[in-house]
Amino acid sequence: MPKINTYTNISDVEKEAKKDYIDRHSPFIHCASSTKAGEKFPVKVKVGNEYAHPDDYDHHIAYVQLFNGDTLLAEARFPAGTLANQKDHVEVDFHIIPTKNLNLTAIAYCTKHGLWQSQEVAVEVE
Amino acid sequence: MPKINTYTNISDVEKEAKKDYIDRHSPFIHCASSTKAGEKFPVKVKVGNEYAHPDDYDHHIAYVQLFNGDTLLAEARFPAGTLANQKDHVEVDFHIIPTKNLNLTAIAYCTKHGLWQSQEVAVEVE
Amino acid sequence: MPKINTYTNISDVEKEAKKDYIDRHSPFIHCASSTKAGEKFPVKVKVGNEYAHPDDYDHHIAYVQLFNGDTLLAEARFPAGTLANQKDHVEVDFHIIPTKNLNLTAIAYCTKHGLWQSQEVAVEVE
Amino acid sequence: MPKINTYTNISDVEKEAKKDYIDRHSPFIHCASSTKAGEKFPVKVKVGNEYAHPDDYDHHIAYVQLFNGDTLLAEARFPAGTLANQKDHVEVDFHIIPTKNLNLTAIAYCTKHGLWQSQEVAVEVE
Repeated sequence: MPKINTYTNISDVEKEAKKDYIDRHSPFIHCASSTKAGEKFPVKVKVGNEYAHPDDYDHHIAYVQLFNGDTLLAEARFPAGTLANQKDHVEVDFHIIPTKNLNLTAIAYCTKHGLWQSQEVAVEVE
Repeated sequence: MPKINTYTNISDVEKEAKKDYIDRHSPFIHCASSTKAGEKFPVKVKVGNEYAHPDDYDHHIAYVQLFNGDTLLAEARFPAGTLANQKDHVEVDFHIIPTKNLNLTAIAYCTKHGLWQSQEVAVEVE
Repeated sequence: MPKINTYTNISDVEKEAKKDYIDRHSPFIHCASSTKAGEKFPVKVKVGNEYAHPDDYDHHIAYVQLFNGDTLLAEARFPAGTLANQKDHVEVDFHIIPTKNLNLTAIAYCTKHGLWQSQEVAVEVE
Repeated sequence: MPKINTYTNISDVEKEAKKDYIDRHSPFIHCASSTKAGEKFPVKVKVGNEYAHPDDYDHHIAYVQLFNGDTLLAEARFPAGTLANQKDHVEVDFHIIPTKNLNLTAIAYCTKHGLWQSQEVAVEVE
């Protein structure tokens, strides 16, 4: 079955190549830590934090998914070339409307290195 | 074959119900009119301008696609419920890297009322 | 806005290169012409009839969609390489359950040559 | 992070409701156990074996994915209603071209009960 790689804090990783490998594949969730129920809430999913991933035809980030617990909230797909075939961060902003506390995870898929999941991000919803 | 409805300026439409029907289904592209080649360029696709669409299980905007001419740049999918089953605007921000002038169109798909395309938006890329 | 190329009977086309171009991009629907309401009904969508399309990283059929009138029934996505990077026909069998007469159209998307739609196929549903 | 439920042989499960729950959500891969490199190879993914899943607007199987090891080969998406809102098996036949031995897994996503993965299926490719 496909392995789902999980983000590890790269400050604990010694080898530069491994730091790069882990970081550039991992999706990161950027959003506020609290919001109000029933209001639009922006959530950015960005792949890679300190290191960027190639956008080559045979090697690119093909999709990202945003889950709340076990529930898919939204997903985005990117054909190769969307980032001009440069090394850069795949990035998308979703705008969801929560009704109660969120427990967000993002998943990214690299056409060469498979599935990667972010750390969980809790959002308090009043 | 599926009809692709095209946005019509609703100020030319007389009946309120028809203005609402056209506007709430049409994707609108929000972005700068010029940018630099090789730089990240945010493009918002938002469905509906003055009127909002339901987010019901049997009636919602299921996906939006962003094209440059005939080429798909990115797409986003939304299960019903992402907007808390409220009437609101499906909205997503893509971040692309252009290399030359863009001629953007967005397409939205409503599970009850089919395919809708935006007006074209030209972006000058220096 | 993206052009949606429509299948033309290639026996009316003179140039061999143009026959190939049209045929290899066009989705063809293969199914029975009648069925019973409430029963599983297989529908094959196959891209190209007499001519096959490349499966190159920078040039492949990325998705096919099956519509009934204006309503999306199902879609399938294929990363490059699924056909071993050989020239061949992208092909998928959906299994739908109709309740009344169908008016099917398929759409295929080529990463270099955009959107293509099939001829309409009517299915009588008793 | 989203839980990925893994198929368990239901003959080991005592409660009827739990057998039904596990079986109707699990994707099953149906294909030959061996094939030739470079030839089209049909792979059916069918959700549920002895028990069928609802196709309700707020509760349906929204997509299935087919992986070979960590690599996505193909995926199919189904809006609610494709199975006439009847309890039945979501089913799709992909046609891939392998070049070496396959180690297939399917993933299914239920809009209420999340991600489910099949047992692995090995295919010998000569």
